[in-house]
Amino acid sequence: MRSSEGLALVGKAVARRGGGADNRRVSIYAAILAGGSGTRFWPASTRDVPKQMLPLAGGAPLLRESVERLTGLVPTERTLIVTGARYAAQVAELLPELPAANILAEPRARNTAAACALAAHRVLRDDPDGVVLMLPSDHVISPASELCAALSAAARRAADARTLVTLGLRPRHAATGYGWIDMGEPTADVDGHEVRAVARFTEKPDLPTAESFLAGGRHLWNLGMFAWRADVLLEEVARHVPGVAIPLAAAAPALGTADEAAALTVAFDACQSISIDHGVLEHSERVEVMPCAFAWDDLGAFPALLRHLPKDEHGNVSVGPLVSIDARGCVAWAEDGSMTALLGVKDLVVVRANGVTLVAPVARAQEVKRLVAELEARGLERFR
Amino acid sequence: MRSSEGLALVGKAVARRGGGADNRRVSIYAAILAGGSGTRFWPASTRDVPKQMLPLAGGAPLLRESVERLTGLVPTERTLIVTGARYAAQVAELLPELPAANILAEPRARNTAAACALAAHRVLRDDPDGVVLMLPSDHVISPASELCAALSAAARRAADARTLVTLGLRPRHAATGYGWIDMGEPTADVDGHEVRAVARFTEKPDLPTAESFLAGGRHLWNLGMFAWRADVLLEEVARHVPGVAIPLAAAAPALGTADEAAALTVAFDACQSISIDHGVLEHSERVEVMPCAFAWDDLGAFPALLRHLPKDEHGNVSVGPLVSIDARGCVAWAEDGSMTALLGVKDLVVVRANGVTLVAPVARAQEVKRLVAELEARGLERFR
Repeated sequence: MRSSEGLALVGKAVARRGGGADNRRVSIYAAILAGGSGTRFWPASTRDVPKQMLPLAGGAPLLRESVERLTGLVPTERTLIVTGARYAAQVAELLPELPAANILAEPRARNTAAACALAAHRVLRDDPDGVVLMLPSDHVISPASELCAALSAAARRAADARTLVTLGLRPRHAATGYGWIDMGEPTADVDGHEVRAVARFTEKPDLPTAESFLAGGRHLWNLGMFAWRADVLLEEVARHVPGVAIPLAAAAPALGTADEAAALTVAFDACQSISIDHGVLEHSERVEVMPCAFAWDDLGAFPALLRHLPKDEHGNVSVGPLVSIDARGCVAWAEDGSMTALLGVKDLVVVRANGVTLVAPVARAQEVKRLVAELEARGLERFR
Repeated sequence: MRSSEGLALVGKAVARRGGGADNRRVSIYAAILAGGSGTRFWPASTRDVPKQMLPLAGGAPLLRESVERLTGLVPTERTLIVTGARYAAQVAELLPELPAANILAEPRARNTAAACALAAHRVLRDDPDGVVLMLPSDHVISPASELCAALSAAARRAADARTLVTLGLRPRHAATGYGWIDMGEPTADVDGHEVRAVARFTEKPDLPTAESFLAGGRHLWNLGMFAWRADVLLEEVARHVPGVAIPLAAAAPALGTADEAAALTVAFDACQSISIDHGVLEHSERVEVMPCAFAWDDLGAFPALLRHLPKDEHGNVSVGPLVSIDARGCVAWAEDGSMTALLGVKDLVVVRANGVTLVAPVARAQEVKRLVAELEARGLERFR
């Protein structure tokens, strides 16, 4: 899945760059967003152990895979993790190779505009020309070489054109849960990666709209992956969301000092909670999109594992040992040291984690959050 | 469920006795068979923690309930537990009120004839006229007062007539998994409890036979509950199964001494493995049956809990907390400190215990032993 050949090409692509006005080598940082907890993987994911900390796809925890995919493109000393303060220690334990100062702990969740601004301030502290790749921590992407090639080209475009470059994926179905990007005219080609203007963002369209987007061929899925110069992003945040820009600018001088945590607490208390898409990208004149075609999955819920884990001869997938008789199409997920036994059942999600046994049909696994909502009413919040 | 009034009547029934040739008060012992492990409640029951040690019906462990049901009829100093040596420590922990010498540890499983003979020898050591009630440890019976009244009458009959008295239950359906007793002529009435001769035992009849038994009205289910004088039982064992009688007679003098364990190891190594039904009851001329009508359930597998636990408004039962949405007719069993969450499923057994999550339809829960058989082949014996 991770081709060292591919990574070598990426390295060359970065080195070869120089056709633009700016001839310096681009200094690429990665800022991986590892904040949300999410309830769709409950009970494996909980308030204490969010989705990105889990080895959901059967390998390493998703956050570690997200970091390792960048090997050869972004060194660990330029890899930042933006996470909730409550998860900072877990992140440090999972990624011991990262400098402690690279874990940016948000005192409270304030959505992605604040997280992007925080990462940009942190990068600017080290490098006034730094380019930031904003990346999710809980997606599955392959091959890593294709992702890195796209990110490398996006970083070069962001550096050269001083734009906010979004990565867009050729859509595979009429998804109503994603953001869609309406592509405008081509604006550049970076080592074979086309860059285009953005005509419009549409967040979570209804089904007829999503179907027309899919049929029209002009729309891409918004992956939540971006490349921008730190200074350019902060200019655009200042222009479009002062409610984020002002408190974070006030905290910026304290980054990397003993006052960091206190300054961030003040900043995040005051900060507006808004996504980078709604706050900046939908309004900025400087947004571009780079169409991509790598294999991507946001692992929305347990049935996604049917697409990522090897199936047994009856179409079952499992994390942890599975013994089954007459079971078909099931997803079994067992916490460390435990196993699943299935007899005569079909298309079920069976999960055991954190003191909870969950059983639901594959087709209804998206509704698991309804069970989580029931916990409080039943005095069972300890299982959340 | 346990009526002290009922128990008082039983006490009187025992005291009032005296119409027969033998005017002494009957000295009643209970010997509760707690040997088998069984796989039908796997993974809650395992090789290490057999069914009778579990609070399957949501109350106390079944063995403790079996002992407590006899309160008022048999004092703990005359209550014996015949169990496997590997379970002796667990039994002692579960029943701390029992004298240590009352736990008879079988060095290896040799079926019920050996267990009955062992208990009889142990009783004879204390009381040459002792009557033994042989009882299972893993059934659910109510009310306790009715059981005790029947056992008291059976003990009196066994003492007076020197017979082997079996308890028979009016059958409720054409069960093919039980033993059936064909009743002969009435032989006695003990305080309103009819006693009859036994025409024949039939073990696990086929369905047409069971249906004819049910329709005929002359057959009872064999509950595996017996009353006999210890000396009478041993006479019949000696007559019909010398392969059991001889080794156990040889070990008998060591009971209660420091040599007990060693003597029993020798005896059980040499002992024939046969049930008391096949070995003695089917051949003895001294067998009688007492028809009973209390509520009885042998808890054959998890779906039996649907008959014993309170149902929620959708017909689900659970041990441990259950949160459900659109779930109906399910049996949820969660080990201590854990819970079950069900969404959109119907008529399933969902069990979590001992590192295993089991899911099967209620209608197929009897097949769980097939999964247990798979474990070894899959290198997962540690979960057995």
